[in-house]
Amino acid sequence: MENLFSDRVRDVPRSFIREILKDALVPGTISFAGGLPNRNLFPVKEIQAATQTVFERYGNDLFQYSASEGFLPLREWIAHRYKEKGLEVPVEHILITSGSQQGLDLLGKTVLNEGDGVIIEEPGYLGAIQAFTVYRPKFLPVPVSETGMETEHLETLVQSEKIKLIYTVPNFQNPSGITYPEENRQKIAQILKGTETVFIEDDPYGDLRFSKNKNTSFYSLLPEQTVLLGSFSKIVIPGFRIGWIVASEPLMEKLVVAKQAADLHTNAFSQCVLHQYVSDYSLDAHISKIISAYRGQKEVMLKSILKHFPEEVSCTRPEGGMFLWVTLPKRLAALDLFDLAVKDKVVFVPGDPFYIGQTNVHTLRLNFSCSDAETIETGILRLSKAIKKMLSGRSVQ
Amino acid sequence: MENLFSDRVRDVPRSFIREILKDALVPGTISFAGGLPNRNLFPVKEIQAATQTVFERYGNDLFQYSASEGFLPLREWIAHRYKEKGLEVPVEHILITSGSQQGLDLLGKTVLNEGDGVIIEEPGYLGAIQAFTVYRPKFLPVPVSETGMETEHLETLVQSEKIKLIYTVPNFQNPSGITYPEENRQKIAQILKGTETVFIEDDPYGDLRFSKNKNTSFYSLLPEQTVLLGSFSKIVIPGFRIGWIVASEPLMEKLVVAKQAADLHTNAFSQCVLHQYVSDYSLDAHISKIISAYRGQKEVMLKSILKHFPEEVSCTRPEGGMFLWVTLPKRLAALDLFDLAVKDKVVFVPGDPFYIGQTNVHTLRLNFSCSDAETIETGILRLSKAIKKMLSGRSVQ
Repeated sequence: MENLFSDRVRDVPRSFIREILKDALVPGTISFAGGLPNRNLFPVKEIQAATQTVFERYGNDLFQYSASEGFLPLREWIAHRYKEKGLEVPVEHILITSGSQQGLDLLGKTVLNEGDGVIIEEPGYLGAIQAFTVYRPKFLPVPVSETGMETEHLETLVQSEKIKLIYTVPNFQNPSGITYPEENRQKIAQILKGTETVFIEDDPYGDLRFSKNKNTSFYSLLPEQTVLLGSFSKIVIPGFRIGWIVASEPLMEKLVVAKQAADLHTNAFSQCVLHQYVSDYSLDAHISKIISAYRGQKEVMLKSILKHFPEEVSCTRPEGGMFLWVTLPKRLAALDLFDLAVKDKVVFVPGDPFYIGQTNVHTLRLNFSCSDAETIETGILRLSKAIKKMLSGRSVQ
Repeated sequence: MENLFSDRVRDVPRSFIREILKDALVPGTISFAGGLPNRNLFPVKEIQAATQTVFERYGNDLFQYSASEGFLPLREWIAHRYKEKGLEVPVEHILITSGSQQGLDLLGKTVLNEGDGVIIEEPGYLGAIQAFTVYRPKFLPVPVSETGMETEHLETLVQSEKIKLIYTVPNFQNPSGITYPEENRQKIAQILKGTETVFIEDDPYGDLRFSKNKNTSFYSLLPEQTVLLGSFSKIVIPGFRIGWIVASEPLMEKLVVAKQAADLHTNAFSQCVLHQYVSDYSLDAHISKIISAYRGQKEVMLKSILKHFPEEVSCTRPEGGMFLWVTLPKRLAALDLFDLAVKDKVVFVPGDPFYIGQTNVHTLRLNFSCSDAETIETGILRLSKAIKKMLSGRSVQ
C-alpha cells in the first residue's frame, strides 16, 4: 500500500507538537505549549451582532458560490487598512485565502519545482516547513536571533544557490518572538534587490505590537519581490480561517488559478461577517485590548523567568506577539527537560521541530497568550525547578 | 518572470467557462451556463436560527483553532446518514474538507506523482481536471454515456497502464447528467477488483434523485479501493464550502497530514452551524423540496427540447442532478452555436472544456436548476432557433 502514495507526502512531518503532547497531559498541567490566541478575548458578541446584520442585509446572496479572489468589500477594507499604515496595495493584488496556511500552500504550489532552493528561518515556523515540504524543495536554513537574520549567511546562499523563495516572519516571530531590527531589514533588502527571489513576509502578529517602535515592511523595501501574508486569526478569530496574500501580476494570476483548483473560494459567509464586524466596530480598539493583555502576560513571564531561572539560561525579550524563546545551556536537551517538566505538570514545545535536521536542541518555545498572571508564575516556577534538577545532574538520562 | 513559476501551474487551465462568458452577456440573456444550485431554495431562515443556537450553545469555543479532521459531531452525523443508506462508514474514515474541490486537491497531492495514470470520464468534471492537473498526471479519458463508462476501454487501460486514480461521478454526472446503470457498476467493479487503483466516487448530486431507482454505491462494490466524496453544497448551501472525504487507513492518515499543511482545518464555525441545522431540521424534507423543483424544471426543459429542437439533435434524460447534455449533429461545433446563441440572448457551456485535448466538439451542457419554467421554455425556443439557423447553413463561419 506504500506504493500508493506520492513522493511528496512521504516527507511531510506529522505534527510533532501533537505527538509529544498526546499522552503527556495529566489534570492540573500548565501548558505553555499552545500556539493559540486567547479565547477569552474573542469578540463573540460583536461577531454575533455582525452575523445578524449580514443575514438581514444579504439573505440568500450569502450562501451561493462566489469569487475565487474573495469578497470584494473585505479586500477593499484590507487595501484601505494597508493605506493607513502607509502601504499602497491595489485591491487586485489581494487574494483571500483559507487562513495564511493556505497562502503558504498556494505559494509553494505556484512557485516551487522539486529541488528549488527555499530559505527558511532557523528556528522557523513549523507550518511553513510543512506546507513547502509537499513541493519537495531544498530547504536552506539561515539562523535568526534578536539581531535579525544572519546576513552574511544569507549573502553566501544567495550567491551560491538558486533561491526561489525566502520565508520570513519579521515581526514577533513564531517560535522565537524576535523582530528583525531596522538595519537588518535594510541589509537583507540590499542583498536581495535585483535577484529573482520571492520574499515572503508573513505577518500574522504584526499588529500585536507592545511598544511604539515600528519597523519598515519588506513590502516597502522590496516592492517588486515581496509577497505579504496577512491573517485575521490572531487579531479577531482563527476559527473562520480567513487570511490573505498580497502579490502582484503575473504571480497573482497563477495564485488565483491555484486557489480555484484548491477549493474554488474561501467561505463566503464568514468573509461577509468579518467585513461587517470590522465595519461596525473598531478593530484597533479590539487589538488594543489584546495587546494590553498579552503585554501584561509577557511581562509576568519575563519577570518570573529572570527571578527563577538559573543565570545560564537566557531568553528573548519579545516586543509583541505570543511567544518567548528560551535557550538552555548547551549540554541540556530541551526534549529531556520536557520529560522532566511533564512530571512537574508544566509543558512547552522543545525547539526541535523548528529546525531542519537538528535534534536534541537546547532551545524551547513558551507561549504567554493563553495563561493568566498567576498561572504563568506557577508554571515558570515549576519549570525553573525542572531546569535546576537537570543542571544539578540529578536526572540526566 | 516566467521562470518564477513551477512546472505544475503552467498547465492548469483557467476557467474556460469564466472566459467565454466574460464579455458575452447582454441584459435579458437567459443563462443555462451556470453550475449553481438554485439560490431561492437555500434554507436561509433555518440556517439563521441554527446560527443563533450555536452562538448561545458554544460561545467562544466556536472560534478557536480546531481539529484538522473536522467537527466531530458533524462527522458522526455523516457516518449516521451513511448508515441509514446501508453503508457502514466509521467516523475515523471521514475528513471534513473545504468543499469537495479540496478533497480532489488533497487526493491528487497524496497519491499522484508526475506521469501517474489517472482515468477520467469523458466528458468529465472540469474542476477535477483542474485539481489533478496541478500534480501533472497522465490523463486517460474513458468515454461515458447513458450506458455508463465504456468498460472495454476501461479494461484495456487497466491492463496496459499503471493507473493510480479513477475519477467518476456515477450519479447525475456533471456535465452530462448521466447515471451509471447497475450492470455497468458491477462490471467496472469486476475489472478493478484486486488492482492497486484508488476509485474516486464523487457524489455531490446523489441525493438529488428524481426517481425511486437507486443504484449500488461503489463504496459497497469496491470497499477497499473506493474513496467517497460528499458535499453539502448542492443539498444545503455551497457558500460554507463544506464537503468531506471517506477514506480508510493508511490513506486517511496521509490525507489528514495534507489537510493540515493545506489550511490547518475547515472553518469550524460553519461546520458547527451546519451540524446544528441538520440536527434541528429535517434535511430530507429540505432535499424533497429541491428535488421537486429541479425535477419540474428538468421536465419542462426536456419537453421543450423534444418539441422545438430538430430531430438530429439528441439529449440525455437525467434522473437527478442539475444538468442535461445535448448532442448536435457532428458537423456543428458547439462553440459556433454559442456565438450565434449569445446574439439570440441565450447561453450554455459548449462541451469543449469537459474533454481532454478535444476542441470544437458537438456537445453542450444545459443547466436546469436555476431557471423557472417560463424562462426555460423561452430559452430553449431561442436556442432551437439558433440551432436551426446553423443547420440551414445560414451562419456557418
